[in-house]
Amino acid sequence: MGSGKRKRLGLLEYVAGIQDGDRAILGRAITLMESRLESDRELAAEVLESVLPHTGTSVRIGITGAPGVGKSTFIDAFGTYLIQAGHRVAVLAVDPTSTVSKGSILGDKTRMDSLAHDPNAFVRPSPSKGLLGGVGAATRESSLLCEAAGYTHILIETVGVGQSEVAVAQMVDIFILLVQPGLGDELQGIKKGIMENSDLVIVNKADGAGVSQAKATKQDFERALHYFPAKPSGWIPKVLCTSSLQKTGLGEIVGEIDSFIATIKANGFFDRQRKEQRAHWLMEQVDQMLRDRFFGHPRVKSELLSLQDEVSQGRVSSLRGAQKLIDIVFKKE
Amino acid sequence: MGSGKRKRLGLLEYVAGIQDGDRAILGRAITLMESRLESDRELAAEVLESVLPHTGTSVRIGITGAPGVGKSTFIDAFGTYLIQAGHRVAVLAVDPTSTVSKGSILGDKTRMDSLAHDPNAFVRPSPSKGLLGGVGAATRESSLLCEAAGYTHILIETVGVGQSEVAVAQMVDIFILLVQPGLGDELQGIKKGIMENSDLVIVNKADGAGVSQAKATKQDFERALHYFPAKPSGWIPKVLCTSSLQKTGLGEIVGEIDSFIATIKANGFFDRQRKEQRAHWLMEQVDQMLRDRFFGHPRVKSELLSLQDEVSQGRVSSLRGAQKLIDIVFKKE
Repeated sequence: MGSGKRKRLGLLEYVAGIQDGDRAILGRAITLMESRLESDRELAAEVLESVLPHTGTSVRIGITGAPGVGKSTFIDAFGTYLIQAGHRVAVLAVDPTSTVSKGSILGDKTRMDSLAHDPNAFVRPSPSKGLLGGVGAATRESSLLCEAAGYTHILIETVGVGQSEVAVAQMVDIFILLVQPGLGDELQGIKKGIMENSDLVIVNKADGAGVSQAKATKQDFERALHYFPAKPSGWIPKVLCTSSLQKTGLGEIVGEIDSFIATIKANGFFDRQRKEQRAHWLMEQVDQMLRDRFFGHPRVKSELLSLQDEVSQGRVSSLRGAQKLIDIVFKKE
Repeated sequence: MGSGKRKRLGLLEYVAGIQDGDRAILGRAITLMESRLESDRELAAEVLESVLPHTGTSVRIGITGAPGVGKSTFIDAFGTYLIQAGHRVAVLAVDPTSTVSKGSILGDKTRMDSLAHDPNAFVRPSPSKGLLGGVGAATRESSLLCEAAGYTHILIETVGVGQSEVAVAQMVDIFILLVQPGLGDELQGIKKGIMENSDLVIVNKADGAGVSQAKATKQDFERALHYFPAKPSGWIPKVLCTSSLQKTGLGEIVGEIDSFIATIKANGFFDRQRKEQRAHWLMEQVDQMLRDRFFGHPRVKSELLSLQDEVSQGRVSSLRGAQKLIDIVFKKE
């Protein structure tokens, strides 16, 4: 993808390019999804609407884990394994820290060396913060575009900070927690909610001197998972070991993912979860758009500053101040 | 406060009752603040507006701590101590768990036995969840009413779950963390953010066999606090021991609070913080009201269900669905 001034693409060019699997056009379509410009939103909605019938058949995989456990290396090895098995792999990220720190998980594409140069892979760096629809909405739309472009496996990575893992859980079929050998779950910075939401825990770095420690860590997590209540998916979470460096254990992971998907397709959870996720994103986007339109309203904009001043000075109560602003838009009821 | 049908009070009755320190009317005014009925909001805003000039002179104290550290007993002893020193004390709570569990921190007033029967105290059980303006907005308005009713010290209690301590930090002058002897900060369930926000850490239960352990815990917390960066208030957090049962250490706590308030009044932080807090609540209330009015709009209500259905079935994208809903209200731009 070059930069600078480029010809603006129209709906048909976007849709045709995506369905042809043109990675440059897919990349530009994702940029369109990330745009907050009111003028881009209509085209974005049209593109999404047009490709929607061609989505829904991919396996959507969420991957979280603390910094340092080797997420990028794992995704590189795992994605390459999938491609060698005949699949096509897209990698996206929800990274709430990307605009703050320069150490963005996907900002540096070269950390996924094999995938970055594979014609059957598409690797997209993190979107920036504060996009339409809250954390991850653009990532969810981007994953739909990737599905329409023929990617069979969508890997969505998150650093597990703040709300990002909640957002990712709302857009994937299976949620994977990546850990490293030797540290307890607290020291790995794993929140209870993440463990509870994981369908698969993968102990990375099970190589060299790390093998026996990885096995012990596997048992620790199996014991910990044992205490959680049964999941609505009917699936009992598994713990597996892998070495991203030596490419061991990858086949087993693919096997468990297939088995998970087969289980939840059979018991109806797969469809139910996807329906609930769509409804969830509708409400997320309504919330965000509502704020965007309200605070973008010319009269709200012009009165907000003076009201903030009056309220902060204590001359007007915050309740009354809020009512005055709201009445600008909702007056005529 | 009796129950059943009561005569609806008018603006003047509310305002006069509050300024006379009539606790029954104060209680009803707080109920009015907690109401989400559109028909109550106007009167609530008028009451608040009328008493606003009589607020601002109290000391606002936030108190958090894990369940079991003895918050109620401490507040009972501490509040009684303040009253004996000639003050008037109001106790409010932001308790996000109150509607879930029956073990509400303030649901059982008798846990603050002395205060509950003291004519110079006003104890208000937790408001319910989901009130206008997000977690704690009603509590903040209630605290303003208490100030107008002549209470000199407003104690706001939270269990430190979820967003409640953030909400409380946004409505108080000083934030106190209550802990118990013998457990590390992690075992006490204390999040890093809470420690960082605390101006005073109080080790409770420093009595009997607990005295030496309390002293050790005091030193642990002093050491931990030492590693946090300097606070914008310019205040260096203190750790004190107390026994709510034997009423020891209470004078020292009052002394430190006075010293804190004097410090931040002198360096300008006191005024700055209050201004920022007012601006914060304006935005909180705008957000909540915006949602209330939007989702309460008759056409939004009637179209939301069918759109949710179409989106969850995958026939309409969530982006398009959201736009359709938003356009109902924001069409005429």
